[in-house]
Amino acid sequence: MRRSERLIRMTKWLVTLPNTPVSLSDLSEHLSAAKSSLSEDVAIIRHTLESEGSGTIATIQGAGGGVKYQVRVPQDATLRFLDDMAAKLKDPSRILPGGFLYMSDILGDPDVLDFVGQLFAQAFYHSAVNVVVTIETKGIPLAVAVARYLHVPVVIVRREHRVTEGAAVSVHYVSGSERRIQPMSISKRAMPSHAKALIVDDFMRAGATAKAVMNLLSEFSAEVAGTAVLMSTMEPQQKLISDYLSLFTVGTLKEGQQIQVIPTGGTWNEKD
Amino acid sequence: MRRSERLIRMTKWLVTLPNTPVSLSDLSEHLSAAKSSLSEDVAIIRHTLESEGSGTIATIQGAGGGVKYQVRVPQDATLRFLDDMAAKLKDPSRILPGGFLYMSDILGDPDVLDFVGQLFAQAFYHSAVNVVVTIETKGIPLAVAVARYLHVPVVIVRREHRVTEGAAVSVHYVSGSERRIQPMSISKRAMPSHAKALIVDDFMRAGATAKAVMNLLSEFSAEVAGTAVLMSTMEPQQKLISDYLSLFTVGTLKEGQQIQVIPTGGTWNEKD
Repeated sequence: MRRSERLIRMTKWLVTLPNTPVSLSDLSEHLSAAKSSLSEDVAIIRHTLESEGSGTIATIQGAGGGVKYQVRVPQDATLRFLDDMAAKLKDPSRILPGGFLYMSDILGDPDVLDFVGQLFAQAFYHSAVNVVVTIETKGIPLAVAVARYLHVPVVIVRREHRVTEGAAVSVHYVSGSERRIQPMSISKRAMPSHAKALIVDDFMRAGATAKAVMNLLSEFSAEVAGTAVLMSTMEPQQKLISDYLSLFTVGTLKEGQQIQVIPTGGTWNEKD
Repeated sequence: MRRSERLIRMTKWLVTLPNTPVSLSDLSEHLSAAKSSLSEDVAIIRHTLESEGSGTIATIQGAGGGVKYQVRVPQDATLRFLDDMAAKLKDPSRILPGGFLYMSDILGDPDVLDFVGQLFAQAFYHSAVNVVVTIETKGIPLAVAVARYLHVPVVIVRREHRVTEGAAVSVHYVSGSERRIQPMSISKRAMPSHAKALIVDDFMRAGATAKAVMNLLSEFSAEVAGTAVLMSTMEPQQKLISDYLSLFTVGTLKEGQQIQVIPTGGTWNEKD
């Protein structure tokens, strides 16, 4: 096989499976090439992605020895994305009765999901997260996109305990927006042991839901690496959780008025 | 830029955005290369992916002219995946009270989601699907994975009409497993006009839910390109919908008994 073909195959393999360790032995077998040639190829791919600012190839030490691709989002692409999204989110026709923001179209858009998945994953690669936790329903697509780039399972917190979940652990909490006591539960079997969780959701107001998910996770002795949301509100300024990342901050929503949307996610890379 | 670097960058770009048209002008600008060199590069990438059986680069005719990557899953990888999954699904501890099958772990596994996403997308590339529709909750991750490879939005059918969805269209249906009348609704604004929908779900018994989603979609004058589920049951043999793809067929579930799981998705490529 010519080097150019090998580089294409390797790039395709690595990019298709972000954050997934691949052993040099597997690559060597699959590409019928000596490990020494593969090491050179890996160096070329790493150099190319890094010079473009669009990813890196991490080396895994240990018995087999291997590599894995981790995504990086160039700063200018992030800023362009945040500006475009802010413009979309400001559309006054998005304000729904009761001061809610219509976001279902955005939360189902494959380009938005993939881009935010990359941004959130990038911010948490260093945290050794082994599960993404979200609460049904609207945040699930985002959580799946993030989990793909982190290469970890996604666990869905259910609002009702369903028969198909098997045994579950439940807590009650006071929902911020609806001001009523609600249950939430996680299937016992779905949670990995020694879980280190990233909580992902679409929207955060006071943070009551995220706080409740944290309480629920503590029942599993899970560690919470962080919380990442697409959008949070300016009010209340004092949230119930202290540590979260939010791509956008939105002002109070009133029908017929301008929507204030501030991109707050542009400086994330510095968190690494 | 050397050709090897250009091939890596292009492969990375195309593979990251499946089924997404990229114009040669954009590539030319981004890679600082003449369109003629890029055409040669595209030919090399196409040839490499096709000879591996892992994808292709389709050419888009018309004004700008461009290319897009479409995934292909090699037949041997499909068979290996189906065998592995069948073995996992047969685990008798998966049987829940009431004859339900525990699948939440599988439905949250990033490798399963990505692989099934590729398989389902491959089967429907030729159908010009422009939206993936699923019903909350368990099927959403699968739907997101498929929508990513088809590069179309995902629309979630809600069991209750929520304020955050805006105006919605609702229907009622008789749930097969629970034998009661239930509502389901789709946000009007979330559906594309002239929709051609692929319905994706995790599990199908008689097909009452899929049938109801079809009825709901007909309220939007949407065309249904097909229905794809991870798993369907042997009984009832006669489903309420006639045309669906199912990766696995499962026998009657009784606690303490062997689970019969038959991989039925291995011959899909012939459907194209």
